[in-house]
Amino acid sequence: MSSENNIEKLVIIGSGPAGWTAAIYAARANLKPFLFAGRAKSVPVLELPGGQLMQTTEVENYPGFPEGVTGPKLMALFERQALRFNTRVATDSGETPNLDDEGHIYQYQDVSRVDFSVRPFRVWSDQDTEIRAHAVIVATGAAANWLGLENEKRLALSGGGVSACAVCDGALPVFRDQKLVVVGGGDSAMEESTYLSKFGSKIYVVHRRDEFRASKIMQKRVLENPKIEPVWDSEVADILGDDHVTGVRLRNVKTGEDRSLECRGFFAAIGHTPNSKFLNGQLELNAKKYIVLKDPFRSTTSVEGVFAAGDVADATYRQAVTAAGMGCKAAIDAERWLAERGID
Amino acid sequence: MSSENNIEKLVIIGSGPAGWTAAIYAARANLKPFLFAGRAKSVPVLELPGGQLMQTTEVENYPGFPEGVTGPKLMALFERQALRFNTRVATDSGETPNLDDEGHIYQYQDVSRVDFSVRPFRVWSDQDTEIRAHAVIVATGAAANWLGLENEKRLALSGGGVSACAVCDGALPVFRDQKLVVVGGGDSAMEESTYLSKFGSKIYVVHRRDEFRASKIMQKRVLENPKIEPVWDSEVADILGDDHVTGVRLRNVKTGEDRSLECRGFFAAIGHTPNSKFLNGQLELNAKKYIVLKDPFRSTTSVEGVFAAGDVADATYRQAVTAAGMGCKAAIDAERWLAERGID
Repeated sequence: MSSENNIEKLVIIGSGPAGWTAAIYAARANLKPFLFAGRAKSVPVLELPGGQLMQTTEVENYPGFPEGVTGPKLMALFERQALRFNTRVATDSGETPNLDDEGHIYQYQDVSRVDFSVRPFRVWSDQDTEIRAHAVIVATGAAANWLGLENEKRLALSGGGVSACAVCDGALPVFRDQKLVVVGGGDSAMEESTYLSKFGSKIYVVHRRDEFRASKIMQKRVLENPKIEPVWDSEVADILGDDHVTGVRLRNVKTGEDRSLECRGFFAAIGHTPNSKFLNGQLELNAKKYIVLKDPFRSTTSVEGVFAAGDVADATYRQAVTAAGMGCKAAIDAERWLAERGID
Repeated sequence: MSSENNIEKLVIIGSGPAGWTAAIYAARANLKPFLFAGRAKSVPVLELPGGQLMQTTEVENYPGFPEGVTGPKLMALFERQALRFNTRVATDSGETPNLDDEGHIYQYQDVSRVDFSVRPFRVWSDQDTEIRAHAVIVATGAAANWLGLENEKRLALSGGGVSACAVCDGALPVFRDQKLVVVGGGDSAMEESTYLSKFGSKIYVVHRRDEFRASKIMQKRVLENPKIEPVWDSEVADILGDDHVTGVRLRNVKTGEDRSLECRGFFAAIGHTPNSKFLNGQLELNAKKYIVLKDPFRSTTSVEGVFAAGDVADATYRQAVTAAGMGCKAAIDAERWLAERGID
């Protein structure tokens, strides 16, 4: 039995490493996946189809690129590979991009809402077009939380030493033996500052309160590290520097006094927000709004036929290659699930 | 506190996508990982450092390579990236390979045994050198089971249409609208033949018995598929063809009679054997001898400080990108575990 007319076998929502990898595998399995890449937005920082890597300059840890590759270049390669195998992409023009067709500006569509209570599932674009689908892969990612400062955005986008991922960027040569500032007080801030202490000469952890929120063991690790110095009761009022970070302006939240602190790098470690809101509670989420995987080794969710991949279901690793691995799993899981139901 | 002299922070065993990715991440985290790449062997088929991809010609589904890449080329890129960031590799000469140093033949070392009952752990090379390590990542992979025919080996290595992975190779143009033979009777054989039925004109599933061992639902799917035809009570006595597969010689195990069957591709689906024997029971394994992940989303094993990644802990997906994702997780898990213990 083949699928009915006008019903997609598989809709993929998201165009980061997880979404495109799911598309590569699903397309090679002849599922002709239909993918929503999302639309460019500019608040609070620029968000582009392609996910968080689009805000990244050099990616040194995606395996297969020994000389490194820029985030946007890597995502363009993923996209081209998915399109090569017959992935269709929701655009305003109705045409799937042909990436050899330079200069053509496609307006990718976003998903505004879904209904997983009926089968086939219903998925609406932000143009209110309705698509029906036997299976759905949610790979909408997460966004790093930022302070929301103008200079933060500018220096993050220009690769000037502002980052929301120490594991991604901490080992870059520009940060070696430099003073670095981390903002945050939770587990992530502890992990990121500990990680950065291997590279920087001094790590300042700026926190609004006079103690960290992180678990005791992680606090202890940070407080005992001679390279790490907490800066209590303080917030970062501005990030200084034209081409690259030269310091931060700190404000003491108790006294209201400002002072500057010299540094070469700024790392936001105030959490991430998974892009799960559009699901409107139709998939089980955890306390931090990440999608719960029914079997954590796989991509199954609380709704049969809906699979999840990438940062929207991963609060722990958040790497391009882990997201890509999850996208592959989701496509294989979806393909087998569809085949079991005679949809292939 | 830094690590003591002559004790490695992290030993990585294995040099497939999981091992090299773990090395890239661990090296970037300044752990100076020490990696055992394994030694070339020629039984039953050629096995090389680099794992199963070394037997693969074209890889079309590793994300980031839209035009495809050969398996050995991809593994060379992974290796180069890991070495660039200060991964050390166990060789007979004692030198870590310098990949710009063409023409120098390195004899990589294998691991012969381990002792995880003491800390730091003990790891012995096949030259009986002992290495001590605070943490270990096991990424030794798995090997596809083959029939063991000379022509099978020859045509697998030359890319002549013999494969042990339908998901990897089934979509290749040479198999489109062709007759294909799958050998096996378990769940894998059902999955592989169902997958191949999307591409081939006819799929013969050759099995020694007169019924499949697979689960009922999967058998049903295969038996109801008009493109799939079971060949009962039969084994493949030989694979025919000079440059590429042209057919197989079948032997009826009840009558002893031989006949030939024309086909363009041959897929072995008689399972895999994880490379876990050298562990000698020191990590919890499942019934099929795969390493059990204590938390299936992560890389933790039954022994604290020992992490697992790739096909040695994955009986389900077995893809380069899923193995790479697991390698990344293992390195991040190991780094955090070491940092919690003040080893960084």
